[in-house]
Amino acid sequence: MDEIAARRAFEDALLSYKPQFETFFLSKLFGLSYHYADETLTIAFPIHDFLFNPQGWVHGGVSAFVLDVAMGHLLWHTLKASGSTLEMKTQYVAPLKGTTARCVANFIRKGKGICFLEARLFDDQGQLTVAATSTWKVNRPKDAVAP
Amino acid sequence: MDEIAARRAFEDALLSYKPQFETFFLSKLFGLSYHYADETLTIAFPIHDFLFNPQGWVHGGVSAFVLDVAMGHLLWHTLKASGSTLEMKTQYVAPLKGTTARCVANFIRKGKGICFLEARLFDDQGQLTVAATSTWKVNRPKDAVAP
Amino acid sequence: MDEIAARRAFEDALLSYKPQFETFFLSKLFGLSYHYADETLTIAFPIHDFLFNPQGWVHGGVSAFVLDVAMGHLLWHTLKASGSTLEMKTQYVAPLKGTTARCVANFIRKGKGICFLEARLFDDQGQLTVAATSTWKVNRPKDAVAP
Amino acid sequence: MDEIAARRAFEDALLSYKPQFETFFLSKLFGLSYHYADETLTIAFPIHDFLFNPQGWVHGGVSAFVLDVAMGHLLWHTLKASGSTLEMKTQYVAPLKGTTARCVANFIRKGKGICFLEARLFDDQGQLTVAATSTWKVNRPKDAVAP
Repeated sequence: MDEIAARRAFEDALLSYKPQFETFFLSKLFGLSYHYADETLTIAFPIHDFLFNPQGWVHGGVSAFVLDVAMGHLLWHTLKASGSTLEMKTQYVAPLKGTTARCVANFIRKGKGICFLEARLFDDQGQLTVAATSTWKVNRPKDAVAP
Repeated sequence: MDEIAARRAFEDALLSYKPQFETFFLSKLFGLSYHYADETLTIAFPIHDFLFNPQGWVHGGVSAFVLDVAMGHLLWHTLKASGSTLEMKTQYVAPLKGTTARCVANFIRKGKGICFLEARLFDDQGQLTVAATSTWKVNRPKDAVAP
Repeated sequence: MDEIAARRAFEDALLSYKPQFETFFLSKLFGLSYHYADETLTIAFPIHDFLFNPQGWVHGGVSAFVLDVAMGHLLWHTLKASGSTLEMKTQYVAPLKGTTARCVANFIRKGKGICFLEARLFDDQGQLTVAATSTWKVNRPKDAVAP
Repeated sequence: MDEIAARRAFEDALLSYKPQFETFFLSKLFGLSYHYADETLTIAFPIHDFLFNPQGWVHGGVSAFVLDVAMGHLLWHTLKASGSTLEMKTQYVAPLKGTTARCVANFIRKGKGICFLEARLFDDQGQLTVAATSTWKVNRPKDAVAP
């Protein structure tokens, strides 16, 4: 494992995080960058080897994390409201390896109270590695947080 | 955020990780401990605030990571073979807060080539916060990794 | 295929259906019977061979139908309100064959606006054949139907 | 309910079914027609009111059935082999009403042993009503049926 790169990512995250959308600590630690266009969000990030599973590629749980982040941020950016994930399903179609990755999120259906979203994670060759769909509750100011 | 605790967790992980089941870097960083009994695995871990989402509780992607780890390790420990997650679904029934959490994984059905598993994540009050089910391909030595 | 039994099931359904919970046409055609106890619903039904897939056992879509019916009726019976399925996931762990089947539904978490449920389908030997989880929106009188 | 139309659909199915792909009894009863192009399958079908839920539109379990049929037939037509559904997730984004419907299935990833598919169900206005993803095991002649 590249421990120097890991420590640099960690210390950079400690210096730059804020507990907000896009800048919360794990987003900074994993090096996520956010690019919105119309109602699509693309997150790009470097593949650090401290994200690996015991087999030697990006842990599926890390992929699930990024997919969840992408869908949640697209909802927040589009609706100007936070959302709560009710459920998410991820399908692992190929191992994620290489140097960088790209996650693209879209709405399946944008409702007022409930939203359905999808996101896909691609490696640096443009190959699909993980596909996700999810269901969200849109939080209105008065809403309690729990579903 | 408790930056001292975060840095301690990070440095401890750097000192103790090995790229293997149970001891890979993110497992160490998140402080996961593994307890097997019969065909059940319980993972206990402390709730560090560097795992939080912008709203101030454990990020759903972190929960998904731990649930995935729990099911994968139970499969590995029981079958003496690694598995590949084909898919996982998580349902978020309540925010995960508090000081510690506990994740319990079981088999739905243990097949030779395909396994179905489930796992649940509880807070320190014993309340269910996230429920997951998943489908796994059992890797045999000759198998290619990708499904 | 037992065409006499199929026609009898069809004509019986035509005579007895009402467009209501428990008695709607497909519920009658498939011969579903409903047994509530506490917050659990068990549906029993005969395995007609007109429900078969081309391979010769109960079609997975029929199993999904019964699991959906079970969870929706349990919600309705418990909350005294109809619900809309936001999503459902089914896992097919074994083919459903034999003469009768039994589907058992429970709450994972019973919320006011959102409910999480699970259901399992067993054959006449008590073997698990299909497992499902789902997320529901509780319809209040004023609610529009669509999510 | 249009009982004359229901009985006609039933008697037509009894006369024309064969226990094979495309022509099995429920496929005939529901009036499914199959149109393959490249690696896409579109199933068209009339919306009979005997398919309705107690609320008065197509039962979600019927939609799940058609989505499952579409993905299974696309796999069979493309790979010249039958498949077993390991799991399927359906998201219900709007009620299915109207006179006809159309279900479109595609591969997410076509593997040798495992396939990932998706399908979407549209009403006669072209509106998306249900979206599904699934995971399949490809059955080779020697394979046992159960996963």
